[in-house]
Amino acid sequence: MTERVVLAYSGGLDTSVAIGWIAERTGAEVIAVAVDVGQGGEDLEVIRQRALDCGAVEAYVADARDEFAEEYCMPALRANALYLDRYPLVSALSRPTIVKHLVRAARQFDAQTVAHGCTGKGNDQVRFEVGITSLAPDLKCLAPVRDLALTREKAIGYAENHSLPIATTKHNPFSIDQNVWGRAVETGFLEDIWNAPTKDVYSYTDDPTFPPVADEVVVTFEKGIPVALDGIAVTPLQAIQEMNRRAGAQGVGRIDIVEDRLVGIKSREIYEAPGAMALIAAHQELENVTIEREQARFKRTVEQRWTELVYDGMWFSPLKRSLETFIDDTQKYVSGEIRLVLHGGRATVSGRRSESSLYDFNLATYDEGDSFDQSQARGFIEIYGLTAKLSAARDVKFGNGVDLSGTSLPATKA
Amino acid sequence: MTERVVLAYSGGLDTSVAIGWIAERTGAEVIAVAVDVGQGGEDLEVIRQRALDCGAVEAYVADARDEFAEEYCMPALRANALYLDRYPLVSALSRPTIVKHLVRAARQFDAQTVAHGCTGKGNDQVRFEVGITSLAPDLKCLAPVRDLALTREKAIGYAENHSLPIATTKHNPFSIDQNVWGRAVETGFLEDIWNAPTKDVYSYTDDPTFPPVADEVVVTFEKGIPVALDGIAVTPLQAIQEMNRRAGAQGVGRIDIVEDRLVGIKSREIYEAPGAMALIAAHQELENVTIEREQARFKRTVEQRWTELVYDGMWFSPLKRSLETFIDDTQKYVSGEIRLVLHGGRATVSGRRSESSLYDFNLATYDEGDSFDQSQARGFIEIYGLTAKLSAARDVKFGNGVDLSGTSLPATKA
Amino acid sequence: MTERVVLAYSGGLDTSVAIGWIAERTGAEVIAVAVDVGQGGEDLEVIRQRALDCGAVEAYVADARDEFAEEYCMPALRANALYLDRYPLVSALSRPTIVKHLVRAARQFDAQTVAHGCTGKGNDQVRFEVGITSLAPDLKCLAPVRDLALTREKAIGYAENHSLPIATTKHNPFSIDQNVWGRAVETGFLEDIWNAPTKDVYSYTDDPTFPPVADEVVVTFEKGIPVALDGIAVTPLQAIQEMNRRAGAQGVGRIDIVEDRLVGIKSREIYEAPGAMALIAAHQELENVTIEREQARFKRTVEQRWTELVYDGMWFSPLKRSLETFIDDTQKYVSGEIRLVLHGGRATVSGRRSESSLYDFNLATYDEGDSFDQSQARGFIEIYGLTAKLSAARDVKFGNGVDLSGTSLPATKA
Amino acid sequence: MTERVVLAYSGGLDTSVAIGWIAERTGAEVIAVAVDVGQGGEDLEVIRQRALDCGAVEAYVADARDEFAEEYCMPALRANALYLDRYPLVSALSRPTIVKHLVRAARQFDAQTVAHGCTGKGNDQVRFEVGITSLAPDLKCLAPVRDLALTREKAIGYAENHSLPIATTKHNPFSIDQNVWGRAVETGFLEDIWNAPTKDVYSYTDDPTFPPVADEVVVTFEKGIPVALDGIAVTPLQAIQEMNRRAGAQGVGRIDIVEDRLVGIKSREIYEAPGAMALIAAHQELENVTIEREQARFKRTVEQRWTELVYDGMWFSPLKRSLETFIDDTQKYVSGEIRLVLHGGRATVSGRRSESSLYDFNLATYDEGDSFDQSQARGFIEIYGLTAKLSAARDVKFGNGVDLSGTSLPATKA
Repeated sequence: MTERVVLAYSGGLDTSVAIGWIAERTGAEVIAVAVDVGQGGEDLEVIRQRALDCGAVEAYVADARDEFAEEYCMPALRANALYLDRYPLVSALSRPTIVKHLVRAARQFDAQTVAHGCTGKGNDQVRFEVGITSLAPDLKCLAPVRDLALTREKAIGYAENHSLPIATTKHNPFSIDQNVWGRAVETGFLEDIWNAPTKDVYSYTDDPTFPPVADEVVVTFEKGIPVALDGIAVTPLQAIQEMNRRAGAQGVGRIDIVEDRLVGIKSREIYEAPGAMALIAAHQELENVTIEREQARFKRTVEQRWTELVYDGMWFSPLKRSLETFIDDTQKYVSGEIRLVLHGGRATVSGRRSESSLYDFNLATYDEGDSFDQSQARGFIEIYGLTAKLSAARDVKFGNGVDLSGTSLPATKA
Repeated sequence: MTERVVLAYSGGLDTSVAIGWIAERTGAEVIAVAVDVGQGGEDLEVIRQRALDCGAVEAYVADARDEFAEEYCMPALRANALYLDRYPLVSALSRPTIVKHLVRAARQFDAQTVAHGCTGKGNDQVRFEVGITSLAPDLKCLAPVRDLALTREKAIGYAENHSLPIATTKHNPFSIDQNVWGRAVETGFLEDIWNAPTKDVYSYTDDPTFPPVADEVVVTFEKGIPVALDGIAVTPLQAIQEMNRRAGAQGVGRIDIVEDRLVGIKSREIYEAPGAMALIAAHQELENVTIEREQARFKRTVEQRWTELVYDGMWFSPLKRSLETFIDDTQKYVSGEIRLVLHGGRATVSGRRSESSLYDFNLATYDEGDSFDQSQARGFIEIYGLTAKLSAARDVKFGNGVDLSGTSLPATKA
Repeated sequence: MTERVVLAYSGGLDTSVAIGWIAERTGAEVIAVAVDVGQGGEDLEVIRQRALDCGAVEAYVADARDEFAEEYCMPALRANALYLDRYPLVSALSRPTIVKHLVRAARQFDAQTVAHGCTGKGNDQVRFEVGITSLAPDLKCLAPVRDLALTREKAIGYAENHSLPIATTKHNPFSIDQNVWGRAVETGFLEDIWNAPTKDVYSYTDDPTFPPVADEVVVTFEKGIPVALDGIAVTPLQAIQEMNRRAGAQGVGRIDIVEDRLVGIKSREIYEAPGAMALIAAHQELENVTIEREQARFKRTVEQRWTELVYDGMWFSPLKRSLETFIDDTQKYVSGEIRLVLHGGRATVSGRRSESSLYDFNLATYDEGDSFDQSQARGFIEIYGLTAKLSAARDVKFGNGVDLSGTSLPATKA
Repeated sequence: MTERVVLAYSGGLDTSVAIGWIAERTGAEVIAVAVDVGQGGEDLEVIRQRALDCGAVEAYVADARDEFAEEYCMPALRANALYLDRYPLVSALSRPTIVKHLVRAARQFDAQTVAHGCTGKGNDQVRFEVGITSLAPDLKCLAPVRDLALTREKAIGYAENHSLPIATTKHNPFSIDQNVWGRAVETGFLEDIWNAPTKDVYSYTDDPTFPPVADEVVVTFEKGIPVALDGIAVTPLQAIQEMNRRAGAQGVGRIDIVEDRLVGIKSREIYEAPGAMALIAAHQELENVTIEREQARFKRTVEQRWTELVYDGMWFSPLKRSLETFIDDTQKYVSGEIRLVLHGGRATVSGRRSESSLYDFNLATYDEGDSFDQSQARGFIEIYGLTAKLSAARDVKFGNGVDLSGTSLPATKA
């Protein structure tokens, strides 16, 4: 039987050429699979037809937008997932979604290999291949760019020689990946990390320098998931799309960062994630109101590890799953409303209310109605500070006490 | 010999009354100590005179601004200290500074007790008292508001009866603490956490809604400390002051948050910290460029614990000191320049350069000169993903494999 | 209506006197509740009768042994809970069990207060009171020793004056707490931490110095819970009891430690926990065989926090519950058999087998059948070590490279 | 110029053959370097001569025993380094020691490549190669077994054909690595993880089943380093050697474990580390007495990461160095004496004393002289437990309160 290869197909030059390139070099039949994770752009039916025109024996298109929003973006939101405290894992979330469809297609079409268009120096190759073997340990992986020497030069030549129905441009200034959770841009110009991004880098966001009038939105969450905007029920996908539109119009969610790749190099990345960043800001503040202090403190450690794992391509790993049971348990009471002001690149929380709030007005207020018993504080402080006090007494005993004369102590003015 | 009490004196109504109140109720002599941590406002010499007029036997004023900037704000900057990922520890940093001067004064004036104006339900009482007993385990602590029933009503009555030289207003809408690192505001109106802050809450920042033209500043760091702005050498204090001015003019650094107090309650706080927030943004990105990945990942855990400890009043604790040796070691190469754009509430990094950068253009580039050997990736991925793959194979064996049919799997479009 | 107080009753002198002491000083009726957590000793019916004889209006005895084993000891086993890496949380586990019964009794008998016999300087007062208010925020707590000045001297006097049916001895050398998970001993003699424990300190374990012949036991686990010993099905309670007997005969599980109490002091404690320590040793090794590496590494962080929380009296806290969802998820495959050799104070694993093992003979073996592809190692090492290599190159550039001449480098012998 | 290769030479069959094998296959000259890390066995001068007899152009022998003890074992002791809570990093510590000498030799002899005898499926290849490129990013690495197909069969054939002065045995039952910190054994027989180790596996320890009479030793530490045994001053090397002898005679320090290798597989290992395990037990307890609680709690997280990094071959990484500054800072007061009883496989602490102890008899005692103010406990408990209480009240409000009827609640006996 002829070998079959399922190829993650984007419709662009590289993967269009890869169809024939793989077929020629391996003798296998190629099945093209395109997955809609909200990347926009061309109609997927057009893309499907192109795959067939480029020589795919089958072409398969999946609308995974709701699945992506519900099963990938929402866990990231609950985890307040920001790699390096900044990057909301745009590409890292879409890869496992696509992987699932690739493996499903491989099973359906009896393929033994799954191919993808990544290079050999990025994170995505790891996310694809670890994901694939985590879902189907028997499948082989293939990256034509990395394993079959499919350079951009060769791709252009191949496309022209074979008259493939795809535009070839010698110079493509940007390398772009986008989905409904955000958009990632790399480019030669920005590889000089002192250079500022130019305006043409951005697409999901308008310039925050000249914003329209401020936009106010009330986001309703249930157990950490946005369920309504301004009181109108939304699905997760709709919540992200609508917030992309409204926060994007205000220039919210532009990110410019040098980040640590899993393969050991630092790279400069530009992201746009207006909806993601606005929703995370809202979610974090609702957690401040509804999650108990120690649970919230430990959750930060869990969030960081979850985010690193997902960034590092370990979506389907046992640890990621266990961390998620922790996170899920913390979301039980993360329900309520957050009022966000969107304006000029900022998504600012200006109000919060929740039936399950742990904020207690009577304990917090300094006005009438204060129910906090201040007489308990002395005992608390004495016992709470005891180990520090004993340590300090030892420091004094050993001549290591804090130097009260200080090195930069000011002279008395008077 | 008469007992002596050193009182942390602000010049305001509460501590002005406390001078006499303590003297009457305890029979002790009161020494007033005012510490300048960059809070601005009245001249400290005026404040010193007021203390004497209110009955202090001694009044002492210390200019601790450079000390505060160098020994308290700079470690916070190196730790990227943001409690709950938002709050740059404004008051939490000034308390240990003030404590050191209080204890020094207690030693100088042979006092046995240190008093402060805090209530019994906040963090600051803990910061003062744990700090004091950590520097001087033999000293006693006194909080007239908490321990001697000095309510605001009584304070007003006392001030009027004794004709103290201090204004008394029945209603003070805001409770404010400020220093050069930032400004904290609490108020009755904001205790309803659904209410948005009004414009009169702010003082360090202009309204970001209508900003002047964008301001660009290049911050030069040496080992994590800002040493120049736009090429002009600055001290830490000057760096903060100048960034307060420039970032403040752009409305950078407004924070509105519900936070977890050490005493177990949640409270709503408004902060302004234009210089601190801009400097932290710059510092974080310079770390992205200069710190090795695993060191950076673990540093986040250290940063969080450092920040919690300092928030929780443990400035002088052994753990805080040990965490700082870790942080200091990570700053060895955090030197270089960050270009920040300040505009409309945003402090955005647009460029970075460093002699000690770990960013390697030749490894990162997708253009000519790429020196990354992509052939190594396959071996890496195979071994890196091995434990996940073995776990996945076990899941399949036990019928726990990922369900490829999915719950919300989309239908094929084609 | 008369106030009612539920008292945690042990049958000993202190709590026997407390019945009348509370009644006299507060005017309340006292309901005595004794909970069997496997502490052995007197028959609980005898204890119940004594409570009535001492003046309790009701006396209530609960057999919580299975509940304690299943709902408290088993989670501790799954967490490999060892405070300071040594102490298996003996008392810390029984307190929440007892608390639950106290609160249940308070509800049943319409009591407004729960009392316990703890002093004001230990952990147990915190565990009782935080537990009680976490189950029933409206209940008040009372500790006669701490709050009603019930010293041991006074207790003896009271018992003699009122002819209570309880032995009074001026000097009680040991303070003991025991349950099926272990036994805790404190004593004046051991408060000098240089003193070695004497033989009479121990009760659950025989002297390991002169053990009987080695005992071998096969423990079968299902999802982290022991379900059979030497192939004979057991309940959790039976597993612990039987292992206490067999490991105790070999002197396994004696612990002598200076530990950090929650109230800020260090104290010296002797524990015996033969069954707990043997079961934890077995469970840890089964985890080594069945849990994926990264999951196992992070689980250690979770275990430590779980253990600290439970030690610190936070059994009923939200964070403890969330940590437990993590732990539970890791136990899915912790099933199989561990062969333990018990002898002379040691519980040593000598064999393990599991259907759900991740140990793969063909990957591990150096003999025939090796399926590990060693050619992948070079690529792995190159990329895995890249960040360290780049950092090292920077060190060299800045003159901070590792000094190869070294400070203590040996001379060449030859 | 002829290429030169520095080879880590053990004197055994594999590396003896490797000398000629490398020379033949690469055309390079081979310099053999043997490093004494206390592995015992043959005289190093004999080994040096054998290397020359096998064709090395230079042979170099270094006595790194003191260096290994001081700069590698002592940091591990201060870190209480136990991988998986069991394994004291025997081989993981010696590799960077050896690496340093290999690189030094490469510089001295102008070699461009460093070779080692490891296979392609273990940890040691990673430790060697990441270590080498971290010290000398320009050097190349070579593993003849992995890269030049030097199987054991071929090695035996080669040695016989070339009449190398080394014994060849078809079957070598054990794979052994040893140094002064311990001894590691792998073997085909033990690859069946249900098999118990046989007596002939062990060499550093006598059978603990039939021990001599108990041995008591007092270990004196200064800042976490053992400086005297029974009052007699020792170097770190002497401390380890002497404890190996005395604890080894009692069968202390046998370890049998399935462990997670860095390369993704689980393997079964037997270790003996009598001195290391006894010293770690003593050090941990001295830390219990001298380190403040929160510092000790966080140190566990640091210890785990340090241990993982060193196990994973990252000795020369920036994070390992930063973690060590933390650990060093915690050792300031870890000075004092620990009395250990060594007997029948157990190393048990029976006493501790320290000038810098934080154990305070007057705070700890329940007898005369108690200086702990119990009246402070109520305030402490109330505030300490407040967040748990508020969370519990919310649980009740939402019907999620703890079920007091329970699932396995016992019936009342009475």
